[in-house]
Amino acid sequence: MAGRSITLEQAQAVVAAALKEGRAQNYQPLTVAVLDPGGHLLAFAREDNSSNLRPQIAIAKAAGALALGLPTRILGEMAAERPTFINALSTISPVGVVPAAGGLLIYNAESEVVGAIGVTGDISDNDELCAKAGIAALTF
Amino acid sequence: MAGRSITLEQAQAVVAAALKEGRAQNYQPLTVAVLDPGGHLLAFAREDNSSNLRPQIAIAKAAGALALGLPTRILGEMAAERPTFINALSTISPVGVVPAAGGLLIYNAESEVVGAIGVTGDISDNDELCAKAGIAALTF
Amino acid sequence: MAGRSITLEQAQAVVAAALKEGRAQNYQPLTVAVLDPGGHLLAFAREDNSSNLRPQIAIAKAAGALALGLPTRILGEMAAERPTFINALSTISPVGVVPAAGGLLIYNAESEVVGAIGVTGDISDNDELCAKAGIAALTF
Amino acid sequence: MAGRSITLEQAQAVVAAALKEGRAQNYQPLTVAVLDPGGHLLAFAREDNSSNLRPQIAIAKAAGALALGLPTRILGEMAAERPTFINALSTISPVGVVPAAGGLLIYNAESEVVGAIGVTGDISDNDELCAKAGIAALTF
Repeated sequence: MAGRSITLEQAQAVVAAALKEGRAQNYQPLTVAVLDPGGHLLAFAREDNSSNLRPQIAIAKAAGALALGLPTRILGEMAAERPTFINALSTISPVGVVPAAGGLLIYNAESEVVGAIGVTGDISDNDELCAKAGIAALTF
Repeated sequence: MAGRSITLEQAQAVVAAALKEGRAQNYQPLTVAVLDPGGHLLAFAREDNSSNLRPQIAIAKAAGALALGLPTRILGEMAAERPTFINALSTISPVGVVPAAGGLLIYNAESEVVGAIGVTGDISDNDELCAKAGIAALTF
Repeated sequence: MAGRSITLEQAQAVVAAALKEGRAQNYQPLTVAVLDPGGHLLAFAREDNSSNLRPQIAIAKAAGALALGLPTRILGEMAAERPTFINALSTISPVGVVPAAGGLLIYNAESEVVGAIGVTGDISDNDELCAKAGIAALTF
Repeated sequence: MAGRSITLEQAQAVVAAALKEGRAQNYQPLTVAVLDPGGHLLAFAREDNSSNLRPQIAIAKAAGALALGLPTRILGEMAAERPTFINALSTISPVGVVPAAGGLLIYNAESEVVGAIGVTGDISDNDELCAKAGIAALTF
């Protein structure tokens, strides 16, 4: 269920925490996007040396989580079993859908969806760890 | 000539300064996008209550400035005289082009283009004032 | 009527001659595209400091000439009288159509269309002069 | 990190060297695209008899390398293991992404990305050999 969106201030705290984790772990340069529950970009940062398509990938991971209401890790697992279905999602989503870990929903204390985060730049398992660190910065 | 891109830290300072000006002037909620000279998103923030299409508009203003190497205010003036030409640019640009003030190029001390900013949310004249305030935060 | 395409060697000579004219006249940095009669890119060059959207504009001028079999100057004149029609062309052409001077058809000695050139970067009148200089380099 | 783009003169030397290698090896007709680090076309040539979609393929190989900062050969390997992920990239990239060898980044002496090359026309291993020959023509 979609709740009231997190604020810009909260979204920026999420982005900062995700990047901080990446630096602490010495990951590759990261790109982080936070969307509101409607899928519209709220906050975004692309670290120096993060490559050209990373903005679209980060956004497509966050939007991918909102698309089906699932972490993009699950979309990646679905992709192994039903690739044509996942390809179809990518085509019909205005910003695509990237079926790899790193996209997570953001919930408030009432378990309502209040946003989504997408991280890309390192291997997807590590992208997801940074996404979790970002979300952990929120206190409701 | 395109120079080396501003850094994420610089881009975030530009965004913060643009938003600060908006609050100081009590403008409508703003959305600010900063792109690298290649047109790829670097930093972005959408203030609470800034509406759904503002991300695309802010990006299209910054990309619009990079498209022809001109402030989008000038694209707006061109649109009054040659609307179909400006429409054509909007069609062939991957992220569109918004021909209204608020999109400006960012130059370094050597007069090289090192990024672009796009602001939207208030009337376009005020968007442009915030864009200028954002750029003024940079010291090279 | 479409004839056999000019060769790559000829297309490169056209590009070189168009750029040479631009430098001789001290025009703004130019971008030049030469397409085959089917509308497929043959040769292309973007001068240093020619802005981000110039590739698409040069291609859309050349394709614009091929679209209706007319110099894009004429499309610009049509745009003043029938803007909605010209807008429609821009939408249905895979690479857009730019209704400003600078796009010309290339004819062989039998008056067959053997390619098209598109130039952008200075004012459109000067773009067109460079396009003509490019074509003048061909001998059939 | 993206450095200052190679010049048009350098880009044309890269194209010429790639084509020269193709002719020396008697490869199929080739198409070569060189982009700046932002992904915008700099120089391009399509040999006579190189087919219709080769321009888009060459550009999508060069852009593919810039997308993730990897040779497109690696994208091809990723495609074998995670095809839906690579499909997603193709959808969200404005010019697509072609996951086959032939797209390489161009680095300067400081290991900064200063452009990208994409070659298509023969088998992809040979396309990549020509791309390497193109890059070898540069001296920094």
